[in-house]
Amino acid sequence: MLKNYEIRRYQMTQEEIRALVKEKREELAGQQMVIKEHKLPVFVLIEGWGAAGKGTMIGGLIKDLDPRFFRVITMKSPGTEEKRMPFLWRYMEAIPEAGKFVFLNSGWLRETADDFVCGRIDDAALEQRFRQIRTFERQLKDNGYLVVKLFLQIPPKEQKHRLDKLKEEKHTRWRVSEKDMQQVKKREKYEAIYDRALEATNTGYAPWNIVDAVEKKQALLQALHILTNQIHQAVENYKILPEILHRDYPLIKMPKLAQVSLDQEMAKEEYEIRLKELQRTLKGLHNKIYQKKIPVVIAYEGWDAAGKGGNIRRLTSALDPRGFEVHPIASPEPHEKARHYLWRFYHRLPKEGHIAIFDRSWYGRVMVERLEGFCSENDWKRAYNEINEFERELSEWGALVLKFWVHIDKDMQLARFTDRQNTPEKQWKITEEDWRNREKWDAYEEAVDEMIARTSTENAPWFIIPSNNKYYARLLAIQTVIDQIERRLRR
Amino acid sequence: MLKNYEIRRYQMTQEEIRALVKEKREELAGQQMVIKEHKLPVFVLIEGWGAAGKGTMIGGLIKDLDPRFFRVITMKSPGTEEKRMPFLWRYMEAIPEAGKFVFLNSGWLRETADDFVCGRIDDAALEQRFRQIRTFERQLKDNGYLVVKLFLQIPPKEQKHRLDKLKEEKHTRWRVSEKDMQQVKKREKYEAIYDRALEATNTGYAPWNIVDAVEKKQALLQALHILTNQIHQAVENYKILPEILHRDYPLIKMPKLAQVSLDQEMAKEEYEIRLKELQRTLKGLHNKIYQKKIPVVIAYEGWDAAGKGGNIRRLTSALDPRGFEVHPIASPEPHEKARHYLWRFYHRLPKEGHIAIFDRSWYGRVMVERLEGFCSENDWKRAYNEINEFERELSEWGALVLKFWVHIDKDMQLARFTDRQNTPEKQWKITEEDWRNREKWDAYEEAVDEMIARTSTENAPWFIIPSNNKYYARLLAIQTVIDQIERRLRR
Repeated sequence: MLKNYEIRRYQMTQEEIRALVKEKREELAGQQMVIKEHKLPVFVLIEGWGAAGKGTMIGGLIKDLDPRFFRVITMKSPGTEEKRMPFLWRYMEAIPEAGKFVFLNSGWLRETADDFVCGRIDDAALEQRFRQIRTFERQLKDNGYLVVKLFLQIPPKEQKHRLDKLKEEKHTRWRVSEKDMQQVKKREKYEAIYDRALEATNTGYAPWNIVDAVEKKQALLQALHILTNQIHQAVENYKILPEILHRDYPLIKMPKLAQVSLDQEMAKEEYEIRLKELQRTLKGLHNKIYQKKIPVVIAYEGWDAAGKGGNIRRLTSALDPRGFEVHPIASPEPHEKARHYLWRFYHRLPKEGHIAIFDRSWYGRVMVERLEGFCSENDWKRAYNEINEFERELSEWGALVLKFWVHIDKDMQLARFTDRQNTPEKQWKITEEDWRNREKWDAYEEAVDEMIARTSTENAPWFIIPSNNKYYARLLAIQTVIDQIERRLRR
Repeated sequence: MLKNYEIRRYQMTQEEIRALVKEKREELAGQQMVIKEHKLPVFVLIEGWGAAGKGTMIGGLIKDLDPRFFRVITMKSPGTEEKRMPFLWRYMEAIPEAGKFVFLNSGWLRETADDFVCGRIDDAALEQRFRQIRTFERQLKDNGYLVVKLFLQIPPKEQKHRLDKLKEEKHTRWRVSEKDMQQVKKREKYEAIYDRALEATNTGYAPWNIVDAVEKKQALLQALHILTNQIHQAVENYKILPEILHRDYPLIKMPKLAQVSLDQEMAKEEYEIRLKELQRTLKGLHNKIYQKKIPVVIAYEGWDAAGKGGNIRRLTSALDPRGFEVHPIASPEPHEKARHYLWRFYHRLPKEGHIAIFDRSWYGRVMVERLEGFCSENDWKRAYNEINEFERELSEWGALVLKFWVHIDKDMQLARFTDRQNTPEKQWKITEEDWRNREKWDAYEEAVDEMIARTSTENAPWFIIPSNNKYYARLLAIQTVIDQIERRLRR
């Protein structure tokens, strides 16, 4: 895209440009109310050569915007903590809230180009990144985001000239980084990788816009044109439903819940002996995954009163508290609701070598949100693929991902609900909502069957844990975690 | 405290201890509901010698707790980003929500001891830290927190023995850090600094508890005793109001709002010329504070329709968007409300070299929260001192802190409200609430006068910006920022 790029300039006087910039800026300021009304989040990625004027460009774009409606985020090289997270993690953290702008000063393009030129990633990893970036942007688009991508282009001579000038002046010298100079020295290499990356991530849902950045006012005007146009289009088209993708994943054939036997037995004495053994084994494995820096993600789902809490506790009491975290998932808070539904789970991912246990998870999308109408039909139908993509990204990062459905039958649930109701210390555990959910058992069962069938992938399998007998269930869950960790360690 | 520490052991058999541990653990599990009901946040700090068993201790404490009610946070040496924030920043980030536990595995004590032994801080800085820690803990206590502090004590021989044993085993070798070995080598130095630190931060509101950690079960039992007792006491005493402190700060004598002249005039032409000049100067200074790593915190308060937004925009359009952030402050979200009221401002502090502009601020406590009854009388009366302490900490960290009251009179507000009402593009800016607040003008004026009088300290002064003429106000604000930065740079 850079190679065959032609210089485009407005044939106007300076005054005409200035007047048009003012006009477009007012238009953009007016659009603030429009995007607020439509709850449209606008993610503007500004990439380009060092010294191409990214900062000045952002300054020009935000000039008339109200600080309540935008944030500027400058991405540096990832820090030590960020390096322990998936590549896209910090970009996901940065996505705007509904009805607001985020301007990102450099992002996944520059980071990827630097990593490739410096040999930190190879060709295969590069292609994987491109796919992840496309998936990320498509998911944003499908979930109602507008992603605007600008690349500020200047010729090599111009870049060198600008950097030299910055270096001459005492007050601006510090602004020239080693990376900037490296771009000049290795301009051809950078040109090749930028070109390849721009091509690979130039999609219908998030196209690249090359901006001629030699003349600053001209560049700003171009950017304002692009931004206001794309907002206009996004608002016009917001009713067009995104496509529901059915991608092929290596699915594991799973039984329906009705086919799962629940009559296992387990005596307390045997349970206690086995539990100790398993916990000892797990403890040793926890050390190993810490040493090998393998992140582990465990999602617990299951019927109310199936015993998720007790099950989780038996698992965690074998673990070093410095190396795991349990995330109880309730309904999203306002700042979470205002973002992509996977955002709050991304935010809670474990670092390398740590274990994150989710007590309820992103599968809420295809269960409670589906059945209670908290999202549209298109939303939850799209979610199977989105979740598979999310979990694939985790496993490409190196994570072990596993999911438990803690299963009981309807009679057992009634018995446990009644017990909770009648035992004072347990009453807080049972609410009106639990009884209401119980009435929808059949609808939930259908949703769960569909969920398990469609998201039990080889890299993130579901395990159904029969839990009419809690002892049996607890041992099975720990045993499964042990088996999966051992399998992962052999890889 | 360590020197004259006497070994205390329960004179019981192993079985008796095990039974008592079980009992105490159940008591703690039962207290979960009590602290939830009382909205009591419980912050448990576990300090102690390397290999004293902090991790095991935490594992023992949380064993029967529900993951919804606690978090374990392990503090390592601060990362690159954390080093650019005030010392207590990451501990403030870690405070629990109302009704929940946080267990902190090492904290401000260990960090301070390491910094001192390694020569990163001198004696004066050490004393400053102690004061900051005391202030932090007292503020938590006063705002309804329970802070429980345990120090796990083992003799030098025992420590060396444990570390040697860990180092022998292949699977545990990696757990012994260089810092641990350093403690053994410099045990006397560490003993002296720990002793001094324990003494200096052993207060009535957050006393230290030395736990004999040679026998692990004994130690756990001691810790359970201390924790359950302190929760019990905190719940019993929650109705006792904290003392309202009136500390002496170097206050600047300020006029009352009624004495401030508002009849300044400024022609548009003159304004535009001056604005450009001032913005150019400010731009240069922004570069300098970035280079010198000075963080700048600017709080904007003022009457509705006084022109805060436009004023802020004139300031920011002179700044490089990579180096500042504007934080519009609305009413707190649930997760913010569940914590100390300064938490969300702490969270938004700028990094070294950056500028954070708050559009409304922590002063909400002594204005809207006071007048609308969102906090108790004791709360807002305490807040003057708490805010002075907060701002002193910022300036000790090296920050430039300044506060603007953007001022208009009642007639001007009416004129601007009416204009907003009658101009379609501005209607979103005016709400019913604005009109309701206007009715309480006199009460607000009294609160603002008191606020300015009591929090205009030398290290964080208030500036009243007459804003009947917006041009005048904008120039004055930028000029003030320039003056204050220049003054700070000369220091």
